[in-house]
Amino acid sequence: MKIFQQLINSPSQWIKEEGPEANIVFSSRVRLARNIQGFVFPPWASNSELKKVSTEILEAAGKSKYFKVSSVIDMEKLSFLERRFLLERHLISDEFVDNGKYRFLVATEGEIISLMINEEDHLRLQSILPGLQLMEAWKLSDKVDNDLEEYLNYAFSPQRGYLTSCPTNVGTGMRASCMIHLPSLVATNRIRDVLKGVSQLGLITRGLYGEGTSSRGDFFQISNQVTLGLKEEQILNSVERVTRRVVEEEKRAREVLLKNNSAKIKDEIGRAYGILTNAYLISSEEALQLLSKIRLGIGLGFLSGLKIGILNELFILIEPAQIQIMEGKSLNPFSRDRTRAKIIKEKLTIHPPGQMHGCMDV
Amino acid sequence: MKIFQQLINSPSQWIKEEGPEANIVFSSRVRLARNIQGFVFPPWASNSELKKVSTEILEAAGKSKYFKVSSVIDMEKLSFLERRFLLERHLISDEFVDNGKYRFLVATEGEIISLMINEEDHLRLQSILPGLQLMEAWKLSDKVDNDLEEYLNYAFSPQRGYLTSCPTNVGTGMRASCMIHLPSLVATNRIRDVLKGVSQLGLITRGLYGEGTSSRGDFFQISNQVTLGLKEEQILNSVERVTRRVVEEEKRAREVLLKNNSAKIKDEIGRAYGILTNAYLISSEEALQLLSKIRLGIGLGFLSGLKIGILNELFILIEPAQIQIMEGKSLNPFSRDRTRAKIIKEKLTIHPPGQMHGCMDV
Repeated sequence: MKIFQQLINSPSQWIKEEGPEANIVFSSRVRLARNIQGFVFPPWASNSELKKVSTEILEAAGKSKYFKVSSVIDMEKLSFLERRFLLERHLISDEFVDNGKYRFLVATEGEIISLMINEEDHLRLQSILPGLQLMEAWKLSDKVDNDLEEYLNYAFSPQRGYLTSCPTNVGTGMRASCMIHLPSLVATNRIRDVLKGVSQLGLITRGLYGEGTSSRGDFFQISNQVTLGLKEEQILNSVERVTRRVVEEEKRAREVLLKNNSAKIKDEIGRAYGILTNAYLISSEEALQLLSKIRLGIGLGFLSGLKIGILNELFILIEPAQIQIMEGKSLNPFSRDRTRAKIIKEKLTIHPPGQMHGCMDV
Repeated sequence: MKIFQQLINSPSQWIKEEGPEANIVFSSRVRLARNIQGFVFPPWASNSELKKVSTEILEAAGKSKYFKVSSVIDMEKLSFLERRFLLERHLISDEFVDNGKYRFLVATEGEIISLMINEEDHLRLQSILPGLQLMEAWKLSDKVDNDLEEYLNYAFSPQRGYLTSCPTNVGTGMRASCMIHLPSLVATNRIRDVLKGVSQLGLITRGLYGEGTSSRGDFFQISNQVTLGLKEEQILNSVERVTRRVVEEEKRAREVLLKNNSAKIKDEIGRAYGILTNAYLISSEEALQLLSKIRLGIGLGFLSGLKIGILNELFILIEPAQIQIMEGKSLNPFSRDRTRAKIIKEKLTIHPPGQMHGCMDV
């Protein structure tokens, strides 16, 4: 599919670019849930209703200035592997992977703004930016949302706010989240206390791929639980304030690590780098673990010449569907591990750090 | 001590150079046990007798053309660390490490020929060559032995041959041995059967540092048990024939590994290389294990640009006393692990293979 070639050739802008607090904050994301008045919510809608809604929203997106350069993807036309590819790119949800009929993805160039049509709600609008830029992500979402509202009649109640399929999203319909990388809090065993503190402040923590996923590569997502009874700014302030606090905790843990275990941490980072640039086979789980060490190493200044953006990209590129779509064919686990090792070696070698070292000829 | 500076600056010739079957055979060694007539064997000798014997042998060595360029080391004047250094270089035995009084080492430049005076026997003459060159090592030992005999009166019985302190050495007084590297027989679990076969043929197998030591870094020593009732040539033929057979077994095991587990073995070799060139700390045990993989990698042609000689040298250089003598001071285990990591990185980088890869700045 042509769209995939585009996606492969231009990895997400929010992944490649470095935002504020890039060493610790991977990305900031704002997602708005919207529904169209007069239509049944997707979980209970008939196919003809889903079709009508999708047509209406696609028309609106077609008129919006924000989607002038964008791709429209009919989920039904995709293979399972192609859907997994979009999931790994954080463009769609598990629900879209499982069910494609009358479901569409609209994504702008660079994947900063995207729409899922007929997910749990008629419309899920996402804006995602690199680093800690929650307010900027919100402003972007808000502008696109207002623009789409010119052409769409949102289901809205003066008492309750935006109406949504699931009651937990009613009100602002907003989920604001930051993806943060906390290797030192994990290494110093402080992570549990910190996450407990986050949930006591009324926020939720999740793993790399959202709801129900465990932490992989020491990544954690902090997001709001409550959508009702609060203004958007209050939610955003809360998520940003707590994220900043966790970022400070991670920074302190890094200082502690450097002070008490400098040699050990240098050793771990060095070995991770050595394995990643010389392994012949590597699983995604091991790659995530080792890339996490490298990302920490860049943050600590041990790996000059390597950029956080390259690492962020690798965290996505090593996933099974990315590898297979890039190779243009389905691969067995062995071939995936082999291709993953090649991709990592290549990416970590394109920008070689100061000193140079030999490597296997294989 | 000046002698150590010489030893540090010029690593043993038999280690650096590549001999026949270098990929598998590390070295060939012939050791002759000799005693001087009219003197009590060292274990029962008084200090004055030991002194007299040592004077006599040192005088003989001084006259011999083979020791014109050589170092004479009075073991008593050495620290424990310096003795360990010589043990690690395969120049002296454990007994010399423990007891230095009236004990001397004479070593030629390049350490091809050496004498231990007042070890278990009055004289232990050793010649050691790289690769599989047992006959050449014997010829060298024999020539030096004949030359020394011009100035010394060896204890010899027409019925029994050379008389020695321990009955197991009586006769030829010869121990012929080959040090061989068998990583693939270890990896394919064939090693036990092979070693069993060797002992059934009347030969002995040992680890890297001779009698009583276990195999480290997949190195094994094959040597004769019997010294009595056989001619030197018979012993040498037996050790060489069995060594060649084991070499063939290792070659076959390498073919099997390549055929059945090519990717796994490439992965292990690549990872070993990556860790060795990027670790910040490394123990001697881990270094030996990983260097063994690299040595195999060179043998299999996966690491062009790296020479077996560099690896052979590293197997010695990473030992604790080598590191401390080279650094010129006693080091705690942490500092040894740190220095070892630096030495390995440096040695494996001096001759970088074809492709180049980045490395930690630490």
